[in-house]
Amino acid sequence: MSFIAEDHAMMARALQLAERALFTTTPNPRVGCVIAKDGRIVGEGWHHQAGTPHAEVHALAMAGLAARGATAYVTLEPCSHHGRTPPCADALVKAGVARVVAAMGDPNPEVNGQGMKRLAEAGIETEVGLLESQARELNKGFLSRIERGRPWVTVKTASSLDGKTALLNGQSQWITGPEARRDVHALRARSCAVLTGSGTVIADDPQLTVREVETMRQPMRVVVDSALATSFDAKIYNTEVAPTWLATAVADPARHAPYLARGVHVKVLPAADGRVDLAALLSTLAEAGVGELMIEAGAGLNGALLAAGLVDELYLYYAMTLIGHHAHGLFEWSELTCLRNKQAVRLLDCRAVGADLRLICAVEAFRPAA
Amino acid sequence: MSFIAEDHAMMARALQLAERALFTTTPNPRVGCVIAKDGRIVGEGWHHQAGTPHAEVHALAMAGLAARGATAYVTLEPCSHHGRTPPCADALVKAGVARVVAAMGDPNPEVNGQGMKRLAEAGIETEVGLLESQARELNKGFLSRIERGRPWVTVKTASSLDGKTALLNGQSQWITGPEARRDVHALRARSCAVLTGSGTVIADDPQLTVREVETMRQPMRVVVDSALATSFDAKIYNTEVAPTWLATAVADPARHAPYLARGVHVKVLPAADGRVDLAALLSTLAEAGVGELMIEAGAGLNGALLAAGLVDELYLYYAMTLIGHHAHGLFEWSELTCLRNKQAVRLLDCRAVGADLRLICAVEAFRPAA
Repeated sequence: MSFIAEDHAMMARALQLAERALFTTTPNPRVGCVIAKDGRIVGEGWHHQAGTPHAEVHALAMAGLAARGATAYVTLEPCSHHGRTPPCADALVKAGVARVVAAMGDPNPEVNGQGMKRLAEAGIETEVGLLESQARELNKGFLSRIERGRPWVTVKTASSLDGKTALLNGQSQWITGPEARRDVHALRARSCAVLTGSGTVIADDPQLTVREVETMRQPMRVVVDSALATSFDAKIYNTEVAPTWLATAVADPARHAPYLARGVHVKVLPAADGRVDLAALLSTLAEAGVGELMIEAGAGLNGALLAAGLVDELYLYYAMTLIGHHAHGLFEWSELTCLRNKQAVRLLDCRAVGADLRLICAVEAFRPAA
Repeated sequence: MSFIAEDHAMMARALQLAERALFTTTPNPRVGCVIAKDGRIVGEGWHHQAGTPHAEVHALAMAGLAARGATAYVTLEPCSHHGRTPPCADALVKAGVARVVAAMGDPNPEVNGQGMKRLAEAGIETEVGLLESQARELNKGFLSRIERGRPWVTVKTASSLDGKTALLNGQSQWITGPEARRDVHALRARSCAVLTGSGTVIADDPQLTVREVETMRQPMRVVVDSALATSFDAKIYNTEVAPTWLATAVADPARHAPYLARGVHVKVLPAADGRVDLAALLSTLAEAGVGELMIEAGAGLNGALLAAGLVDELYLYYAMTLIGHHAHGLFEWSELTCLRNKQAVRLLDCRAVGADLRLICAVEAFRPAA
């Protein structure tokens, strides 16, 4: 691979275009395409939504005859299979482009190198790997689902500076401010699904819908309720903006009926300890097309997911307040007896969001308690 | 007041000089002086240590005859009284300076406007208030002691991102990294005194001395031990680098004897609840010349000081780790029943210190629990 500055600029633009569909492409990846000739962009486009044309189709339509002899920059290897739309590799060949640069290969077993191969066989110059890490970041959910068979899991918390999320009497709303709330809704909007626990449904009765930012699509909602403790009258089961799943360890169909009657999908996934098998739930969600999964739960579920090694990233919002020790904390798991067993994280980003502070952290491989 | 850019530049330099003695002037304020003529600095100096010459004396000595007709910039009103050194106002008059600009007046009752008055009576042009807030920040301890009769109180904590300082088995050392530790030692070095509680002495046996940065002076140590639960063999009572105070509610002289034998100053300050009266302790410390007081204690004493409205600033160090809820937290006080009663703080600074994050927050007026 040897890329010149122009290649970098064109791929950066293609990534920018891909990001325009941040809220809409699920379960498909976000993809952008730029067609350039003699240093000028002659066509560009991005994939809007599953079932509609891919980025390359938009860009080729804009370029028209100018595509002949041009370079196409795509943030993901062009498809080679007939899905709901015809293969983009064929369209690029037909348009007569001379060179195709892909930020990364598509690990989807239906593509997996076949797209680049078809282009090369048609005599087109092909290159892969320009701004690859940026392209991977943009589609971390899609990639996790394909490569690991589970979603990319992001836990969001909102707490005081001493790590308290709610008073013992349950009061928790508006610890953080309106800007943080809007930021959280943007995170929901880009997520394929939002997962919560029975404790949060019972205490806060949330809808977990996107309301503070504009979106054409609402994420799936998932409630983990091992013992079916949540009321079927809870708002989350009665707002029909997006599919809602209820994951439980209760197998009795009679107890599922009232939830099913409200259009809720009930999944029975018991683990040995009588609770929902969280790893099995995540696999099932990935099979159903969930790439980015956001967790908005309490300390119990947050802690269980972390302790099971199932969390990739943390969005920690801190309000500029102190609540004191008689209050609910952030993460619950068994007592550590040695500090070497603490959960290490890596700081990726730290910034003010309104009057609050937001930390984004990558979760390091979990060290089991002694 | 009307100042030109040159005045600002000269006063900024004087503040820089004052800061050179950050670790050494206690109980005196940090003061810098610049003498300038025709846009050039002809003399500069700063106060090094109590009992040694003031900033003006150093600057005048450097300027020599060039001081005649010059402007003197001082970060604090020149003194007018005979202390351990003769009055600086007289020295400035004698040197023949034409103008004196002070960042702020000296609230010390022995000066309190008399310094500027003496200069004006000698026909010198005087101005007060240039970069005053910077000058106040530099001497917040001295000013608090004089103006409020108590020290400027800074609570330092080191915790995980979920607000945990130690495991239940007591393990707490090295939660934060070496850079944070050095930063904490610099904060100790500028403090007049470092205060801790009996719990910390028993669990960690700390020395609370400055070791990681260079200093000519060690801060006083203060242990709050209401019931005399700490052993007189604790390191803090047996390292004679600086005076050590033991504040207790136990009045029995026989029980004081082993501490007194180790050179410890025992202060009996009982409150109605049988614990040490923290407000009375702070007043007593201010009377003894303590301006900047740093608190390195556990959740109990930190919480009690905050709940009593006795804390001005927080230095919160966060390690990039999670410990989980079975661990010691940051602040203990009575349970809140309404979130409106949470302790508000104002973020002053947020930065990486090595691999850790450091927040500096101002404590807002405490809202009492409902």
